Amino acid sequence: MREVSIVGIGSTSFGRHAGTPIEQLAVAAAAQAIVDAGIDRGRIGAVYLGNFVSGPLTGQEVLAGLVADQLGLPNVPCTKVEGACASGGIAFRHACLAVASGQCDAALVVGVEAMTHAPTGQTTAALNCAMDNRNDGSSGLTFPGLFGLAWRMHARRYGTDRRQVSAVVRKNKANGLLNPLAQMGARLSDEQIAASAPICDPLQLFDCCPTSDGAAALVVMARSMVGEATGQPIDVLAAVQTRGAARIAGHPDLCSFEATVSAAQRAYADAGIRPADVDVVELHDCFSIAEIIDSEDLGIVPRGQGGAWALEGRTAVGGDVAVNPSGGLLAKGHPVGATGVGQLFEVARQLRGTHPNPVRDARIGMTHNLGGTGVACTVSILGRPA
Amino acid sequence: MREVSIVGIGSTSFGRHAGTPIEQLAVAAAAQAIVDAGIDRGRIGAVYLGNFVSGPLTGQEVLAGLVADQLGLPNVPCTKVEGACASGGIAFRHACLAVASGQCDAALVVGVEAMTHAPTGQTTAALNCAMDNRNDGSSGLTFPGLFGLAWRMHARRYGTDRRQVSAVVRKNKANGLLNPLAQMGARLSDEQIAASAPICDPLQLFDCCPTSDGAAALVVMARSMVGEATGQPIDVLAAVQTRGAARIAGHPDLCSFEATVSAAQRAYADAGIRPADVDVVELHDCFSIAEIIDSEDLGIVPRGQGGAWALEGRTAVGGDVAVNPSGGLLAKGHPVGATGVGQLFEVARQLRGTHPNPVRDARIGMTHNLGGTGVACTVSILGRPA
Repeated sequence: MREVSIVGIGSTSFGRHAGTPIEQLAVAAAAQAIVDAGIDRGRIGAVYLGNFVSGPLTGQEVLAGLVADQLGLPNVPCTKVEGACASGGIAFRHACLAVASGQCDAALVVGVEAMTHAPTGQTTAALNCAMDNRNDGSSGLTFPGLFGLAWRMHARRYGTDRRQVSAVVRKNKANGLLNPLAQMGARLSDEQIAASAPICDPLQLFDCCPTSDGAAALVVMARSMVGEATGQPIDVLAAVQTRGAARIAGHPDLCSFEATVSAAQRAYADAGIRPADVDVVELHDCFSIAEIIDSEDLGIVPRGQGGAWALEGRTAVGGDVAVNPSGGLLAKGHPVGATGVGQLFEVARQLRGTHPNPVRDARIGMTHNLGGTGVACTVSILGRPA
Repeated sequence: MREVSIVGIGSTSFGRHAGTPIEQLAVAAAAQAIVDAGIDRGRIGAVYLGNFVSGPLTGQEVLAGLVADQLGLPNVPCTKVEGACASGGIAFRHACLAVASGQCDAALVVGVEAMTHAPTGQTTAALNCAMDNRNDGSSGLTFPGLFGLAWRMHARRYGTDRRQVSAVVRKNKANGLLNPLAQMGARLSDEQIAASAPICDPLQLFDCCPTSDGAAALVVMARSMVGEATGQPIDVLAAVQTRGAARIAGHPDLCSFEATVSAAQRAYADAGIRPADVDVVELHDCFSIAEIIDSEDLGIVPRGQGGAWALEGRTAVGGDVAVNPSGGLLAKGHPVGATGVGQLFEVARQLRGTHPNPVRDARIGMTHNLGGTGVACTVSILGRPA
């Protein structure tokens, strides 16, 4: 398999774009990535588009082909992939595989979602498509319910408390203030977080990511050919996709997602690095407690210490490892199918040295994208070329 | 890239399964394919599931991981792919690529759709997700409208008439009578076809495929390893995916889909065969006129002669080339995401010599799966091992 690099990146802002058709969001991000790459668009030999709920929420599918058509790309395979909230990461992995296996020399990755135009009830129903509805869904459980249960378990086992969880919210919302693409950065106090509207005990409003529209895109290319591109190349060191249990009762432990643990282990092995080598991580903080669990599952924080590390500032920019300097899902937003691609966009510009909230001397970055009740996961590792 | 074989096949009947949850349809077909393959399910290293409108019509997504979980498969990448009506063919191609590129030695392909439980208006809206809705959709055009226009154009240019088009319907409906998995086989007269309810001039009811539920599945494996499997192996000679225009105005000619033409050309080249070598074809007859256009686009019938060949019985079992001996979409049914996988199931059992409507001495078979307004297409070629 050939080595792969990211040579072009693009993104819309995440937030409210309710007047913009979903395919136009995707076209905007993709056009930016292609221009950034500086390659002839005729070089693009495959398109992978990550999207979750365009069917139910916008009535528009075949987005991969539609976007390629509107971009004027050549007649190449165009595929939408779906794995709930991990759809974007899955799209990236498939584009890397297409290039690595020699099917094509360059591929376009797009992630996109349009959600804010829909009524809340419809959005909640669409998001619940990520559950095993005959099992978990029929109990009335939603995703805030799942992560509320996980929080309770984590608190009981490790003593994780409200102040530690709030430290995650404060950090990510503050990071969001520094990212012009973020939906809702804010400077928040513990009191404001605790006093925000209750969603699902113990989750308050600020513990939950917002509903978002947005798109992000990347151009990946065989590393041996990056001389053709004018975009600053970033090495892809690993792009792993795993599966966990599809229903909550299938998880042996709510304090950990086995799909994350196995994906991270394989990614470290593929990249030939240790967790301590990672300088910056964009991980799947759909809820505040998720960042604590994810950071432990990824091995960047010792098991049970996710809350303490957040409170001590060890996951802030300038700490031991910078977690979600973009603002994460909590502040940057979570346009579901776009999220995984957006994380890679953020880490790529960290490693390029062009991020508005920079992690100093970042050489190795990681992204983590988790779908459903942990049923689908991708972990990718990027590196600044030596 | 390694050579690939199909070693296991499974399918539910196509038709009404409105009491069965969509994931259970998929599990039924997949379990049958794995048992048929006779390999340890721990050998399966990737799952690709083709589905189009499970989100809007059933509220259940993440089907790839959900089905793998219910089957007790190991922790491997599980991906839903979508390209409208070509979703199943796209799933097959990706499973073949996963094996060919050495990512895994065996992969599971599933195609599934559940549609008949939904009211007609909801189904029509869901199917229209395959259009470019900002362009074609906003004009009020539906798929019967598109194929009605294509028929008018074909009639004008080539003189294709009602009796020729009815010959396609009669053939496929009669073939369906011989296929126990088919939804609606029938022995029909030209008069009955012409007298069936008008749908969209010149299409009558019997010119249109039914709404269907169903699932089909395949196990593909590295050809060098088929000795591990007990299922009779069939060689995969080509698995091609292409893109055409996403909107109707983008097609230079309504009498041809360029995505089919280019896919067929590449497939013949990959397989190292000529069109005349093909013994049996399952092609995308979503409407009667589509079979005429597709058979010409695939090069198995001379341009403009699709109607004449059908009327003369040259595309019947026993003719020059057997087209849709399963009954095709018109009679076997069209559970959208399942269709492409079901076509491969049908051709595989033709080449195994186990088909209930057998094509004598069939050695080379082809499948053709077309999505949207020709925006996505797959053409695959299978061969009986020498």
